[in-house]
Amino acid sequence: MTEQSHFKNKITIAGSGPVGAMLAIILSRANYLVDVFESRPDPRAHNAQQGRSINITLSERAWAALEVIGLDKKVRQHATPLYKRIFHSKNGSLSEQSYGKKNQAIWSISREKLTEILISQAEQEAQVKLHYEQRLTYIDFSTACSSFSYLKAGRKGHREVDADYVFAADGAFSKVRRLAQETPRFSYSQRYMEQSYIELTITANEDGSTKLPPHASHMWPRKDFLLVALPNNDGSFTCTLYLNFQGETSFSSLTTPQAVNDFFLDNFSDVMPFLENPVVEFLNKTPNPLFLVSVDPWVINNKVALIGDAAHAMLPFYGHGLNSSFEDCHVIAELIEQYNDDWLKILPAYYLQRKANTNAISKLSNDYFFDISHFDNDELLSKKIADKFALRFPELWPSLDHMISLSRDISYEKARNISLEQKNIMTEIMIIKDIELCWQEDAVYQKLKKMALTRLLPLLK
Amino acid sequence: MTEQSHFKNKITIAGSGPVGAMLAIILSRANYLVDVFESRPDPRAHNAQQGRSINITLSERAWAALEVIGLDKKVRQHATPLYKRIFHSKNGSLSEQSYGKKNQAIWSISREKLTEILISQAEQEAQVKLHYEQRLTYIDFSTACSSFSYLKAGRKGHREVDADYVFAADGAFSKVRRLAQETPRFSYSQRYMEQSYIELTITANEDGSTKLPPHASHMWPRKDFLLVALPNNDGSFTCTLYLNFQGETSFSSLTTPQAVNDFFLDNFSDVMPFLENPVVEFLNKTPNPLFLVSVDPWVINNKVALIGDAAHAMLPFYGHGLNSSFEDCHVIAELIEQYNDDWLKILPAYYLQRKANTNAISKLSNDYFFDISHFDNDELLSKKIADKFALRFPELWPSLDHMISLSRDISYEKARNISLEQKNIMTEIMIIKDIELCWQEDAVYQKLKKMALTRLLPLLK
Repeated sequence: MTEQSHFKNKITIAGSGPVGAMLAIILSRANYLVDVFESRPDPRAHNAQQGRSINITLSERAWAALEVIGLDKKVRQHATPLYKRIFHSKNGSLSEQSYGKKNQAIWSISREKLTEILISQAEQEAQVKLHYEQRLTYIDFSTACSSFSYLKAGRKGHREVDADYVFAADGAFSKVRRLAQETPRFSYSQRYMEQSYIELTITANEDGSTKLPPHASHMWPRKDFLLVALPNNDGSFTCTLYLNFQGETSFSSLTTPQAVNDFFLDNFSDVMPFLENPVVEFLNKTPNPLFLVSVDPWVINNKVALIGDAAHAMLPFYGHGLNSSFEDCHVIAELIEQYNDDWLKILPAYYLQRKANTNAISKLSNDYFFDISHFDNDELLSKKIADKFALRFPELWPSLDHMISLSRDISYEKARNISLEQKNIMTEIMIIKDIELCWQEDAVYQKLKKMALTRLLPLLK
Repeated sequence: MTEQSHFKNKITIAGSGPVGAMLAIILSRANYLVDVFESRPDPRAHNAQQGRSINITLSERAWAALEVIGLDKKVRQHATPLYKRIFHSKNGSLSEQSYGKKNQAIWSISREKLTEILISQAEQEAQVKLHYEQRLTYIDFSTACSSFSYLKAGRKGHREVDADYVFAADGAFSKVRRLAQETPRFSYSQRYMEQSYIELTITANEDGSTKLPPHASHMWPRKDFLLVALPNNDGSFTCTLYLNFQGETSFSSLTTPQAVNDFFLDNFSDVMPFLENPVVEFLNKTPNPLFLVSVDPWVINNKVALIGDAAHAMLPFYGHGLNSSFEDCHVIAELIEQYNDDWLKILPAYYLQRKANTNAISKLSNDYFFDISHFDNDELLSKKIADKFALRFPELWPSLDHMISLSRDISYEKARNISLEQKNIMTEIMIIKDIELCWQEDAVYQKLKKMALTRLLPLLK
């Protein structure tokens, strides 16, 4: 904060991750006085944060939000475009799915870099003050006053912070949300998945070139488990292995170097030579849990609002956790304008709009693990047919990738409804007799067109 | 506790409600050393506990557990048998449903009285010590050691309590469960209902007689809301009004004496003269929320186990919250014997068995609000047909009341599966042409018998 000018309201933000930082910038520019509190030290003075290093993919929703605060160009300098998914089968054969048309891409970036850019900008804002190593201990949900304890070495005691509103941008393990669980009629659920994950690395070649085709996300779908590799700017790849925590083939059952070695050779033989010490890493790393969060309501007494993972932590398979959270911030910016700073209208409208849409992307993310892990020839053919149809009648058959990652004007909720109906329609197409032989014939596409016109068009409007 | 004899293990119980007290008695008699901690003062020195005064109905499951600790006779002296439900329609006409055969009853008792009997007994046990006004602040889930802060006036500070195991019998708002939410892979959900409730009273006549037919539960089902009256031993009735918290007809919308008066006159005219100041009570009382809890797992590190409402708080409509919790205790007693005090086997077996069964009764309780509130002629006829069939072929058609409240050997899970299939069968019976005219004809019962033989009998085995 460089000066204290005349401001409209005082707002406390819990959490200085990318969401807290973006929200602070938006609120400051709308002339609010913003205090951001974070229990951890300033990440710019430290190495990568633990448990947070899954690469982030940025979709158009994120770019739209970044444009609002003028950081899109800066962020893009550190991001890598991904034009397609490459699927690796057990025998090493490859198949591809483009995310969109030529030149359309989603972008991979490290969470640390993105956070750094956002908090450095937040710090420059006229009315934002960042407070590190101060842990939230209490909120009065009727007044939006909160208490923080000092964590910095040598500094003791508490501070009370007055505000008009509190935003909880404190992530999947939100402390604000935990405190809110004791407010009346607060419904809450956290559901852990059977799968956990560890991260593995593929380094760049000595000349800086990549060991796998660059500008693509790589997937090794194996029904009950899944390996994903996303490229970094320096030619390396960050890989994530999703595997059951317990059970027959799991982090708990694979406990010897021989068993882990066999597991990798059996399932990921093509990439195994590229992975950096996969067996040692597998045996030494603690698997991270995967869970999803559902909350109702997100706004308490019209004083305290949840945002981002605190409100809707979802599974990472679609890479839309942060995209949906940036969209939360974007919507707040729009509603402040639309309702002329009337928070009695802004917060309920925010909740109504975002709850439905984040529910939809969370459900899509749940389904995606199943879809991607069971990726088989049937699905590939069905995708081929849909792609061919979409090429002829693009306005009748938007792809799910297009709708959720490459479009800015289709809500998640609408995208999910359209996608569900597309699945229904393709199920009917795939039961056509000898479809694997006749799939190129015009009759198939006429049938598809008829169904799309009557069943999809109404949803697309 | 009267003496410290040689014991097997040390066990901490959080919560001295009826469940904590029953469990303490069971564990003490199995030769464990038990410390029971409760944040509230000893209830025997105080008046009714707030928010806990819904009458409790005891089914055979509760009696079975009370017999194990030899308290059944003592408790029954303070309980009132209920032989039937009496439904009051809007125009005042009555219809009845017996719970079981003649002389079969469920029993109504005040929660306070039941708690008093149980904790007085627990106090007599050789190896139980009760600690009041000590609040749990921390548990080490890997060692079962816990910390408590003293709440009693004039006494400050904390104490650390060593133990081999901890049981969380600390109720629907369990502190242990809240702390457990931060252990790895702990799935948790609390879901609030649209309905809230207040309690109303019907006093006894001056001569001690009752104003409504005694030995019955009374229901005023009105689709979106419901009034229930349960008799007490002194001739009074405790009534509970379940009504939406917000919306068209709700606690929030009915805010004037005139509106509340009209609401009661319109819906509960027959009982209105008996209710003690319903309009004033309605306007002055704060509605209590209704919510259900689901947890997975109940046992953490084989050191800390949830029991009763802490593990499975459910809706009160079937009156099986405490019955299922007493059954939890009963199962612990059986498993201690079955596995010769091997807690590595007892706790996983307890969780496996009780999770499935409490899930079932929780779902039955959810459905029951809908079933009872939408009680109409169709359902009445369907019940008449089922009753008549059950009279002829009792072994083929046990009633749900019989299975969940009057039987000791049918698990909740089995009862629910049978009940769901009975509903399916009755749906097929009710669509017989002119069923309201021909329902007494033999053909109907032959059809019913055929379906029961092929579809129910396999489930009943």
